[in-house]
Amino acid sequence: MAHSPRPGAPVTIAQVGMHAGVSRQTVSSVLNAPHQVDAETRQRVLASIEALRYRPDRAARNAVTRPTGLVGYAMPAAMAPTAFMDQFLRALTGALEASGRRLMLFTAPDGTDGPAVYEELLAQRAVDAFVLTDTSDNDPRHLWLAERDVRFVSFGRTWPTHGSQPGLWVDVDGAAACARLVAGLYQLGHRRIGFVTWDRTTGAMLDRIAGWRTGCGRHGLSTGDDLVVRVAENSIEAGTAAARALLDSADPPTAIMAVSDTLAVGVLGELRRRGLAFGSDVAVTGFDDSEAASVVEGGLTTVRQPVEQIAGTLVELLDTSDYHRGVLLAGEVVNRGSAPLGGAPGPARGR
Amino acid sequence: MAHSPRPGAPVTIAQVGMHAGVSRQTVSSVLNAPHQVDAETRQRVLASIEALRYRPDRAARNAVTRPTGLVGYAMPAAMAPTAFMDQFLRALTGALEASGRRLMLFTAPDGTDGPAVYEELLAQRAVDAFVLTDTSDNDPRHLWLAERDVRFVSFGRTWPTHGSQPGLWVDVDGAAACARLVAGLYQLGHRRIGFVTWDRTTGAMLDRIAGWRTGCGRHGLSTGDDLVVRVAENSIEAGTAAARALLDSADPPTAIMAVSDTLAVGVLGELRRRGLAFGSDVAVTGFDDSEAASVVEGGLTTVRQPVEQIAGTLVELLDTSDYHRGVLLAGEVVNRGSAPLGGAPGPARGR
Repeated sequence: MAHSPRPGAPVTIAQVGMHAGVSRQTVSSVLNAPHQVDAETRQRVLASIEALRYRPDRAARNAVTRPTGLVGYAMPAAMAPTAFMDQFLRALTGALEASGRRLMLFTAPDGTDGPAVYEELLAQRAVDAFVLTDTSDNDPRHLWLAERDVRFVSFGRTWPTHGSQPGLWVDVDGAAACARLVAGLYQLGHRRIGFVTWDRTTGAMLDRIAGWRTGCGRHGLSTGDDLVVRVAENSIEAGTAAARALLDSADPPTAIMAVSDTLAVGVLGELRRRGLAFGSDVAVTGFDDSEAASVVEGGLTTVRQPVEQIAGTLVELLDTSDYHRGVLLAGEVVNRGSAPLGGAPGPARGR
Repeated sequence: MAHSPRPGAPVTIAQVGMHAGVSRQTVSSVLNAPHQVDAETRQRVLASIEALRYRPDRAARNAVTRPTGLVGYAMPAAMAPTAFMDQFLRALTGALEASGRRLMLFTAPDGTDGPAVYEELLAQRAVDAFVLTDTSDNDPRHLWLAERDVRFVSFGRTWPTHGSQPGLWVDVDGAAACARLVAGLYQLGHRRIGFVTWDRTTGAMLDRIAGWRTGCGRHGLSTGDDLVVRVAENSIEAGTAAARALLDSADPPTAIMAVSDTLAVGVLGELRRRGLAFGSDVAVTGFDDSEAASVVEGGLTTVRQPVEQIAGTLVELLDTSDYHRGVLLAGEVVNRGSAPLGGAPGPARGR
């Protein structure tokens, strides 16, 4: 095709114009003042930018664009509101301020409709960079932003199950934390450890269940299908139903790990109904260190995410010259009554 | 004093300059580009602005200042992180976007050190307006902003106990909600209703205890000092200690209302330890509809704040031409096992 750039050479704005059949100036307008360009032309130019993989030169752009000092953050839509996210935003606001930036909130739809909102914000020069969270399988944002040379950092990995995605990220090592929980339960004598998780495949879920598997493998414990229950939603009721299935199975576990505190609270409810003493009869662990974990009777052993460290590392990454780098932080096991880890070793149970 | 303006006449920028002993241009610089003015001169001019109560003309300022479309919001520092605040920020972000604005987060110290941060943001032209929350007794921000003719709305009243403050606010009618809880408890047969609250005097606390008092008064119930326990902190342990004091008193209540869910969860813990069935032996209510309220065994009857309506009303107020107006929204009583309100009327107890 006549318009294709030479392989290896950077694509120029003039080549994009030729490809789209418009002037260089029109391409520039699409990039810098898209509201001045009619929708059809704009679409055509954007398609050419995509097709040729045109990347505006960062230095040239910075020279003409005064930084806003603002970092954009899309409020998560798919996740239920949590105290953790309030805490995370406080920490992120503080860490950004310490670096001379401020946080601007916006809303964006999930999935492939999301990037249009990011595009509009960039066109309006509303922000210099983005912090992403609530990352999902096939999250379209990472590639979209990287292709446009937009600075971003992500709280949450760009999950390799769906091909590796570009970008800088910080995450908590759920696998390592869950393997530590297994080790603690093993020490207490537990030899059959169940796992309650979501049936929706998310990166966090795969990470945590992998840690359970690794931990069990290290101690020669079963990770058979009869020890895993998948539930449709992250609710207390779903956790209760999962506990029922595990406890009524032919060879019930003596410890139950859940992928979230909410599910774990449901598990505790079922133990209570059966008159089982949790912590001693059946040990239970969650993940998140939510408010629920501290208010349930006896307390729920769980994993806390180091929120200040997460926010601080995200801002550090914004300032690096790297474009692809991930930082895995350790989660902290919070020991409470539902699984008093680190206590005296117990006799083997549930083999 | 020679520099004092004529009573009633609007103060001019020239008068401020005379008062401070600087040129009109210097006053203008302090207002519009304060970083260009040395700190000492800036302080002197600001003192004169305060002394003369100079108010820049809004229309004139708007004519020369392009709006940023950004509304500033200080992340609350004094309150513990909650899922409610996450939910509130999501709702506020959405409501502001619908009005063509976006939310910018910042941090500011409590009390009299706070306005310096607001001043800096205004000097940098970083925002057009503010949403305040976490309002406190003697909150210095309302008067400070009003004097500077800065647009702001407040989630949380500007409490009249310390003199009426200027501004637009939205709040939830805690008094009415607590009076409704008393009425519901009365209908269930309760004739002695205790109240657990903070010993720190906050507007929200005074509002809620006033509702308890009004409700008890309506039904001829005691509001004696022996029915009120004040605790130093908003913790589960403090709630437990308060319940112990009430239940060990000479004439214990049969129902206990708490100013927060956290304290109420502590009350429930003490009932459990004593083998008292809550909901039937002793009824308990909280306030907030936090995650804890739904995860405690049996569930906690509480009051939910209408978060979408709060956010929507705040944004509506930003667009009014009013300068002083308050909107009180009704809290929703959420009925759970700890006080099954609306059930069959019970026999009188605790008289």
